[in-house]
Amino acid sequence: MMNSFGHIFRVTTWGESHGPALGATVDGVPPGVPLEASMLQHWLDRRKPGQSKYTTQRREADEVRILSGVYEGQTTGTPVQLMIENTDQRSKDYSEIAEKFRPGHADITYWQKYGIRDPRGGGRSSARETAARVAAGGIAREALAALAPGLEIRGYMTRMGVHEIDRANIDWDQIEKNPFWTPDATAAATWADYLDGLRKSGSSVGAVIEVVVRGAPAGLGAPIYAKLDTELAAAMMSINAVKGVEIGEGMGAAELTGEENADEIYMGEDGKPVFSSNHAGGILGGISTGQDIVVRFSVKPTSSILTTRKTITKSGEPAEIVTKGRHDPCVGIRAVPVGEAMAACVILDHLLLHRAQVGEGPRGIIG
Amino acid sequence: MMNSFGHIFRVTTWGESHGPALGATVDGVPPGVPLEASMLQHWLDRRKPGQSKYTTQRREADEVRILSGVYEGQTTGTPVQLMIENTDQRSKDYSEIAEKFRPGHADITYWQKYGIRDPRGGGRSSARETAARVAAGGIAREALAALAPGLEIRGYMTRMGVHEIDRANIDWDQIEKNPFWTPDATAAATWADYLDGLRKSGSSVGAVIEVVVRGAPAGLGAPIYAKLDTELAAAMMSINAVKGVEIGEGMGAAELTGEENADEIYMGEDGKPVFSSNHAGGILGGISTGQDIVVRFSVKPTSSILTTRKTITKSGEPAEIVTKGRHDPCVGIRAVPVGEAMAACVILDHLLLHRAQVGEGPRGIIG
Amino acid sequence: MMNSFGHIFRVTTWGESHGPALGATVDGVPPGVPLEASMLQHWLDRRKPGQSKYTTQRREADEVRILSGVYEGQTTGTPVQLMIENTDQRSKDYSEIAEKFRPGHADITYWQKYGIRDPRGGGRSSARETAARVAAGGIAREALAALAPGLEIRGYMTRMGVHEIDRANIDWDQIEKNPFWTPDATAAATWADYLDGLRKSGSSVGAVIEVVVRGAPAGLGAPIYAKLDTELAAAMMSINAVKGVEIGEGMGAAELTGEENADEIYMGEDGKPVFSSNHAGGILGGISTGQDIVVRFSVKPTSSILTTRKTITKSGEPAEIVTKGRHDPCVGIRAVPVGEAMAACVILDHLLLHRAQVGEGPRGIIG
Amino acid sequence: MMNSFGHIFRVTTWGESHGPALGATVDGVPPGVPLEASMLQHWLDRRKPGQSKYTTQRREADEVRILSGVYEGQTTGTPVQLMIENTDQRSKDYSEIAEKFRPGHADITYWQKYGIRDPRGGGRSSARETAARVAAGGIAREALAALAPGLEIRGYMTRMGVHEIDRANIDWDQIEKNPFWTPDATAAATWADYLDGLRKSGSSVGAVIEVVVRGAPAGLGAPIYAKLDTELAAAMMSINAVKGVEIGEGMGAAELTGEENADEIYMGEDGKPVFSSNHAGGILGGISTGQDIVVRFSVKPTSSILTTRKTITKSGEPAEIVTKGRHDPCVGIRAVPVGEAMAACVILDHLLLHRAQVGEGPRGIIG
Repeated sequence: MMNSFGHIFRVTTWGESHGPALGATVDGVPPGVPLEASMLQHWLDRRKPGQSKYTTQRREADEVRILSGVYEGQTTGTPVQLMIENTDQRSKDYSEIAEKFRPGHADITYWQKYGIRDPRGGGRSSARETAARVAAGGIAREALAALAPGLEIRGYMTRMGVHEIDRANIDWDQIEKNPFWTPDATAAATWADYLDGLRKSGSSVGAVIEVVVRGAPAGLGAPIYAKLDTELAAAMMSINAVKGVEIGEGMGAAELTGEENADEIYMGEDGKPVFSSNHAGGILGGISTGQDIVVRFSVKPTSSILTTRKTITKSGEPAEIVTKGRHDPCVGIRAVPVGEAMAACVILDHLLLHRAQVGEGPRGIIG
Repeated sequence: MMNSFGHIFRVTTWGESHGPALGATVDGVPPGVPLEASMLQHWLDRRKPGQSKYTTQRREADEVRILSGVYEGQTTGTPVQLMIENTDQRSKDYSEIAEKFRPGHADITYWQKYGIRDPRGGGRSSARETAARVAAGGIAREALAALAPGLEIRGYMTRMGVHEIDRANIDWDQIEKNPFWTPDATAAATWADYLDGLRKSGSSVGAVIEVVVRGAPAGLGAPIYAKLDTELAAAMMSINAVKGVEIGEGMGAAELTGEENADEIYMGEDGKPVFSSNHAGGILGGISTGQDIVVRFSVKPTSSILTTRKTITKSGEPAEIVTKGRHDPCVGIRAVPVGEAMAACVILDHLLLHRAQVGEGPRGIIG
Repeated sequence: MMNSFGHIFRVTTWGESHGPALGATVDGVPPGVPLEASMLQHWLDRRKPGQSKYTTQRREADEVRILSGVYEGQTTGTPVQLMIENTDQRSKDYSEIAEKFRPGHADITYWQKYGIRDPRGGGRSSARETAARVAAGGIAREALAALAPGLEIRGYMTRMGVHEIDRANIDWDQIEKNPFWTPDATAAATWADYLDGLRKSGSSVGAVIEVVVRGAPAGLGAPIYAKLDTELAAAMMSINAVKGVEIGEGMGAAELTGEENADEIYMGEDGKPVFSSNHAGGILGGISTGQDIVVRFSVKPTSSILTTRKTITKSGEPAEIVTKGRHDPCVGIRAVPVGEAMAACVILDHLLLHRAQVGEGPRGIIG
Repeated sequence: MMNSFGHIFRVTTWGESHGPALGATVDGVPPGVPLEASMLQHWLDRRKPGQSKYTTQRREADEVRILSGVYEGQTTGTPVQLMIENTDQRSKDYSEIAEKFRPGHADITYWQKYGIRDPRGGGRSSARETAARVAAGGIAREALAALAPGLEIRGYMTRMGVHEIDRANIDWDQIEKNPFWTPDATAAATWADYLDGLRKSGSSVGAVIEVVVRGAPAGLGAPIYAKLDTELAAAMMSINAVKGVEIGEGMGAAELTGEENADEIYMGEDGKPVFSSNHAGGILGGISTGQDIVVRFSVKPTSSILTTRKTITKSGEPAEIVTKGRHDPCVGIRAVPVGEAMAACVILDHLLLHRAQVGEGPRGIIG
């Protein structure tokens, strides 16, 4: 169960960065969902490296194949196997990286845990694994389109290093118009210069990504350990390089008083409750309120930088290491589609879990 | 599986705030661990209300009984059932609270999800549930004492509302000397006045709690969804009122460059690696490095305040509500032992999971 | 997860024969199901010892209490905790049984596994644990009454030792009219004499129990490891003393030819398929057909007999042992309500699992 | 979780009979186990069709590839993905089979459940899925070779239709010398004629397979729902066409008295307990005793026979169907390596689960 997530819609990812292939085994897919590889490829292409000068220049086709669970363009309810072959397996020299541990990487901990590791391209700990999540998230999106029409999932960057967006500028229409997936056009311009500088100096920087689920029904999530916020937190924290996760006000909630924080409740014109604000991020007691579900996560700067760092070898000798070659100056950019995919998986899983226990009928209708 | 957490050491909590009892069913406890109720009571007493004027004045004995899984003072390897009877079930009038949804509470979402809810004292969504976690965490601590001698788990408050501690002042010896479990004696003094004011005005405020696991072996955690940081994040986010979780640098990692963030590696005198810093919070690639494991979480201010708030009734009519009676001006205080307990459960579970897959022998010894 | 079963409707049992109490934590209960302790007591009373001279004369009240998950007579969707206090904890002398391993009992294997065991009344391995299952099964029955009206679960004995029923005599109305829960009145008379003889000589004998689920919808079960027959087999095999499980033709299917075994399909007048026979026991490919679901299991004779047996002590010395006191000459009798309870839990769980993945709407309607 | 089994060593199979490929995702593999595809191919070749005139003449290469989790010939502890491409995907006409339900097949139930099915070669319900299990079982065997040297797993047929073996003739050396994997050379001769007749007449017949695990340590298994017998029963019942599962005496235990059934205990010369007999099949209270673990299962006759059968079409019209082409007159033969593989997976999983909870040290040593 170590490489799986989800209760009903259950995703197990497998594969190493430079092995023959990687992918995801997706169980619990509702039957009758239209599905073709091209639908998943759409999302994978957004995560693919080399899309702009701000992401790694590695060339990976990241072409996904569906090996099972689909018949004549529809899911059958049996496991869907997704496979992405690794085409960039160049016969590169990994001897240095195999001997020394890169600071800030999982090299040392895989070694400490297993006593063996696949050093090629980071092996299992490579962010390439997130391609499998994005593909699985694509299935979740198609199922959501059938089960919760109108539900929308949007991810975007709200911070790059020291530069945060101005929330007054948020315009979702801007997200697709800049290479950073940010809804603040002004920030996009600032970030372009900022990241260019970092990129040229061989440095890297962190980022914050926000994912909003709009139009999710109220009632998703369950006490106590299958809370919707718990599962979103786990989903995001499981992404490579993520160090913090927030729901609604997040860490800032600590600074508020009860008066400032509570979202008052009114009756909407459509017979559904509306709230005066959304400090809660759309979740109360672990269960969705029907408001926007807002989750945010930080991505640390990649440790692959051109500055020489101190480290040790496998035999414990002091050493120095410098990462050569292609890297992402801000891996947070490519984390945006990954965050969206994880949100899609969690929301679908909870829709299914909810109808398992409670059914499809309306509950607790107010008014 | 909705009320359970953990893989091998698996805790299922049950019970409502004002039902006959609440507790935890704890499966996967290693056999032969010395265990008596008094060992668990020690930790429960720290979470118990009414310990100082800064916590709710409710009187709950919170006395834990062990109903199974222990024979002659030792665990037998079979499930340990922990029960805490609810002695403060006063025949109180819940009619108002049963009719109106309190803003910021789970009242409305339980109703939206299930179409039925137990309104007495918040039912299942009450923070009283965390007593069961603290008791289960006590078992985890005893097992850890046997399996990982020297391992230490310390939780403390680092922020109360607008006031953060000065990290230069951190002194673990101070933690037990103030009612806020803070390691900064100066902050404790400031907070006392601050919280007194909030308490008297019937307001409330949020907090940040940090939990450190010192002396955990390297190698705990597993790709990809059983990462140690993923599971700590889930554990903390599942605690009532938590809105954000951070590992190491947390959200702040987004503001750093790669040079600032990477922890360089040296060889320690005891043949184990040491690191120049701990931005990673003791976890790389989801696996522990042997450094301090550092997790932090924010707790929102309780929504039970003396200010009147707008809300609606079950039938959708506009209404106003004000919380009467006893409440915690800063629930974060009582979250400290809860955070420690969750950390204990996660670490033990991963020790067991590690020896399942990898065994007890040394792996990847360096030097 | 070692003491739990079920996916959505998940039952975790806990407790030892002579500890303070035993019970079951039942998660995933649909909300709004009418539930009171008396509804569960009804089923527990059928399993209770001392009902006739053919079952053990121990006196156990087996009174079940509901500690959580129910409000004003309805389930709330939160975990239901069921507790049965052990009132027959006489200060008996267990010193002999604590020193020697009883042949055919779990005494030796608990010792081999854990290095510690609770010898009082068999501890966790006692059949008293099945009381918790029967109580949990009672919840499943109430939920099934709401979700699948008309569904009926009947268990009965088809063999006692060398005496099997005549299937031509099966009449469900007879089941309640004899102390053996057998639908064959003629067999009941034979068995009475047979068991009386065994009982008086201090011997014991095995039995076969058949459980039929009538009126279950088609479509329950799922490939490959959540097949309905797989889960029923696991459920029954987990009952104390069970050594064999059969679906439909069971072991006898090996003796048939393809012509004899296949159930031909016709169209029923109600627009549902009917079958010429039911060799399959209502399950094809792990999924229910809509026919009677037929599961059968054998129960070995209890090892508690008055004949002296060879054994060893904890320190490996040769020894002899004889079981004194009260015992069941045919424990299979009391296994009937247990088998029914397990079937109820499995069927409910699969109803919930089915609506999770597929929903509540009709699928694959024929005609 | 519907297509997965195992707790720590967790196998998820995927794929349809005539899709692009099928396989297994194997998580929880211990690191450092020598593994190459050829080691798995050895076991797959035993299950492969067309090995003798007694199995289907279909030609499938059943060539397994390892796509992940192995580096330089050793497992790394990350998921191992096994893929078997379907090379026998002839552009066959499935229109008849797509319209009519074959009696005794899962055609109708997949349709009833999902409202969609992949009719090509039986889709997910085809016994081709068991190839993935055999491959996964090969990994389990390699891990067992490292963790439990001397442990041996042997499967063999004990019944073909009306002909049972004579247990006095059992000689394991005979198993590999006849096409039926039977240890009774006399039976092999009888069966050859018998099956030849059935095959020529286009009929089919059932079988009983016994799997013995010799040399497993005492202490494997756990109360109550992870009992070793429970899990073996589930593992075997999940195999296509299996209708009954027995441990030790199995269904026959019902016919015994307590005196006949109990295995007396003595002290062995090596300081381990020995037993006078093995009615228990090596398991007491769900935990292994150290004796041979004996599990037996029946396989029904394949429903693919040359006799015309009554059925209905998808639109509910009466119809007739006859299976053309290649089939197995006794599918039980090819179930032998499958049963062995499932036993290997269960035993390894429980070795890992045991060391998770109890550790690797000796427990409950007697003498």
